Amino acid sequence: MSDPRIDRTPPDQSVPENLEDLALRDDYALNPAYVEWVIDAADRDDTERLRELLDALHPADVADLMGVLSADYREALLPVINPAELADILSELDTSIREEMLEDVSSDILARALGELDSDDAADVLDDLDEDRRGAVLAAMSDVDRAAIETSLGYKDETAGRIMQREVMAAPQFWTVGQTLDHVRSAADDMPDLFFDVYVVDPSYHPVGAAPLSALLKARLDATLDQVMEPVTDIGVEMDQEEVAYIFQKYHLISAPVTDESGRLVGQITVDDIVHVIGEESEEDILALAGVSDAGRDATALEVARSRFGWLAINILTALLASSVIALFQGEIVKLVSLAVLMPIVASMGGNAGTQTLAVAVRSLATRELNAVNATRIIAREVMVGGMNGIVFALIMAGVAYVWFHQPMLSLVIGLAMVVNLLAAAMAGILVPLTLNRLGYDPAVSSSVFVTTVTDVVGFFTFLGLAALILL
Amino acid sequence: MSDPRIDRTPPDQSVPENLEDLALRDDYALNPAYVEWVIDAADRDDTERLRELLDALHPADVADLMGVLSADYREALLPVINPAELADILSELDTSIREEMLEDVSSDILARALGELDSDDAADVLDDLDEDRRGAVLAAMSDVDRAAIETSLGYKDETAGRIMQREVMAAPQFWTVGQTLDHVRSAADDMPDLFFDVYVVDPSYHPVGAAPLSALLKARLDATLDQVMEPVTDIGVEMDQEEVAYIFQKYHLISAPVTDESGRLVGQITVDDIVHVIGEESEEDILALAGVSDAGRDATALEVARSRFGWLAINILTALLASSVIALFQGEIVKLVSLAVLMPIVASMGGNAGTQTLAVAVRSLATRELNAVNATRIIAREVMVGGMNGIVFALIMAGVAYVWFHQPMLSLVIGLAMVVNLLAAAMAGILVPLTLNRLGYDPAVSSSVFVTTVTDVVGFFTFLGLAALILL
Repeated sequence: MSDPRIDRTPPDQSVPENLEDLALRDDYALNPAYVEWVIDAADRDDTERLRELLDALHPADVADLMGVLSADYREALLPVINPAELADILSELDTSIREEMLEDVSSDILARALGELDSDDAADVLDDLDEDRRGAVLAAMSDVDRAAIETSLGYKDETAGRIMQREVMAAPQFWTVGQTLDHVRSAADDMPDLFFDVYVVDPSYHPVGAAPLSALLKARLDATLDQVMEPVTDIGVEMDQEEVAYIFQKYHLISAPVTDESGRLVGQITVDDIVHVIGEESEEDILALAGVSDAGRDATALEVARSRFGWLAINILTALLASSVIALFQGEIVKLVSLAVLMPIVASMGGNAGTQTLAVAVRSLATRELNAVNATRIIAREVMVGGMNGIVFALIMAGVAYVWFHQPMLSLVIGLAMVVNLLAAAMAGILVPLTLNRLGYDPAVSSSVFVTTVTDVVGFFTFLGLAALILL
Repeated sequence: MSDPRIDRTPPDQSVPENLEDLALRDDYALNPAYVEWVIDAADRDDTERLRELLDALHPADVADLMGVLSADYREALLPVINPAELADILSELDTSIREEMLEDVSSDILARALGELDSDDAADVLDDLDEDRRGAVLAAMSDVDRAAIETSLGYKDETAGRIMQREVMAAPQFWTVGQTLDHVRSAADDMPDLFFDVYVVDPSYHPVGAAPLSALLKARLDATLDQVMEPVTDIGVEMDQEEVAYIFQKYHLISAPVTDESGRLVGQITVDDIVHVIGEESEEDILALAGVSDAGRDATALEVARSRFGWLAINILTALLASSVIALFQGEIVKLVSLAVLMPIVASMGGNAGTQTLAVAVRSLATRELNAVNATRIIAREVMVGGMNGIVFALIMAGVAYVWFHQPMLSLVIGLAMVVNLLAAAMAGILVPLTLNRLGYDPAVSSSVFVTTVTDVVGFFTFLGLAALILL
């Protein structure tokens, strides 16, 4: 009752508002004031106003709104959402929020909503439900929709079969353009919602080409499809989605036919699914290099802490390994405490140089710029780079150390250690991801820990070891 | 003459080959054997064979091939390339290789080749030429092509104006579907090569909607465009390409109209340009976080070494700062050398925890998951995460230190330092990128150095400082 929000001046209702313009800021993020209006309307149970506010938003923006609201408000908004838009909103939501919201929607409503989606998006939503619930929703769907979704769920996660939609427009090569266009118009209801190519198939339903719609529109009506079509890159149904994304990027595809083991057309992948995959995969690389998995925007602090724990636990082991190297030289450190002062520099420079090489290598592997043909040349180049920067920073550090501690031999030791460690960093930075990749592991995931272990251990060992040999 | 490659068995010419199948491996990378055949044919000056080998490749694969060959071989291949494909190949090449190859192509041939490209791709290629050369090529082009490209080059790099193509299909809202389709067919030569939407414009040429081609094909011929069209998100010609990519991803767009300051339609951006931008931008983030700019696949070792130098130079300054903190406590280290053994662990754990937080924050900022609405909540969560993992690893390290050195107070010191440093890491990891972002800087570019400086300095200072206070 005494909620201060109620006193806040509501937007002036006498002036006609253009809610669509008010919803987003210039950078297309949700306007914080708009979020306040939603909260305000929900607090007042003003269903009318809530509906107005939601209707002005694109489903993707409603999903964003759900992401910033707390669970109570999300529950309050659910009944207000236009049922026709529910499916689109669901398919945009973060998994954790989606799971929670799905609990509040009846199986019948959900079945109807999912019938509006392409089979891949519907399967994606259903995949989050527990088995009982999924069965109930599937049972409430039409036979055709159910069959499409069940087939989709039958493919492994992150494969072409999983991200493809079964709805395609295919036609035999001897059809004319006019015949094809007439067919599309007369069978409009059976066509995919949105499509970009007509796939041309041979009698055994193998795709032999694709005719972009714009080419069909420009062509003579009596031309046959095999005169209009372009060569096509078909995607095997079991291909990994990262591979699919690579092919789409490389050949600038808008859509591609998906074929089963016998080469028959079973669906299509469109570029909007791929944009999503590209974003996902490069985000995975960034996070993997930093040793963290995304716990999701709605995760609790405990969940986030857990998601970071594993990598930190591995790091403490490698840090202890580095410490045990230092422990070998305790006597030397007591004799010459400047060793303790300078030793982190060598390790730190190695760690940074290794990380640089590693990041470039991981990206080059992902884009196939680094491959079997040029691996040897790239390795040689990295080692030369490590050597060159090693020498430059050896000279710099030798100078700094001399100014600081006035011991020429100490300068020699830190210079030599710098060269050795930057060479080790270069080799580890390129060989570790290459090796992991060749063994079939994702080079982004575990390379960092190997590389920094190498640079820490080599850094401390060469610096302190050379000091023991030369100085003491 | 004595080149051993000449003796290598060439592919058996009596068996009919399917070169297209042989060119690529299963993972769509170039087959190393295929590259050898090209080298072999070039060594033998066998133009016939070279042409055969190149014709079997997609322009994107020819560009890849250029990337793995040395400059001499690239020069040998140039005259063999089908002139109609030259433009496509040029637009796929790495900038450094492209610059070199463009020197060997006459302005006339180049002008004709660029006329085949969309205006954005042609402008992209021309942008690499020096001013004299660019003038010569533009002079050799048709007036229409020249005007389109000059307009494109007039927009700033990485803006919507630069990545848009000027060729669009637009129609007034009162046109019927039938009228529109007839127009496209009769004016086929003036249409964009490939397009996905007809933009519906009002009398002052402002876009008011878009009709996807598949919707036009499904609609009744006597329906008017304003019955078929869907709402449209228009892109300002000066919008940053990263912003454009965000909008395409968020709303799953295939194409979008670009408008000038007065809202008039001036071009369109299609998703294939955006796929490229998304790849580029996330690659930039990964490399920026690791403190390295991509020197290009063809860069020399010296160029690569230079591109890495800057960040390493900054790192040596921060490492020296950390060392000077250690230097404050030389007396303590001499008295208790186990401090030198253990101190890198605290700094290293802080560095890793900070990097984790930073990577998540940078990605969340890029996808707008982290924004003004939820920043406070996310900051609070990160601090809690830092505190929780700080306590867990404080207990672990206190235990390990006790087993190793049997000094309960040393365990207390390292435990306290761990908690403090993981809290500092969490705060730096989230506040540094947020602040840089708010100030208008790219948070990926310089955050790392701030964060690791904080964790190094705080790590060494709290551990050694607490030791001085409590232990000695």
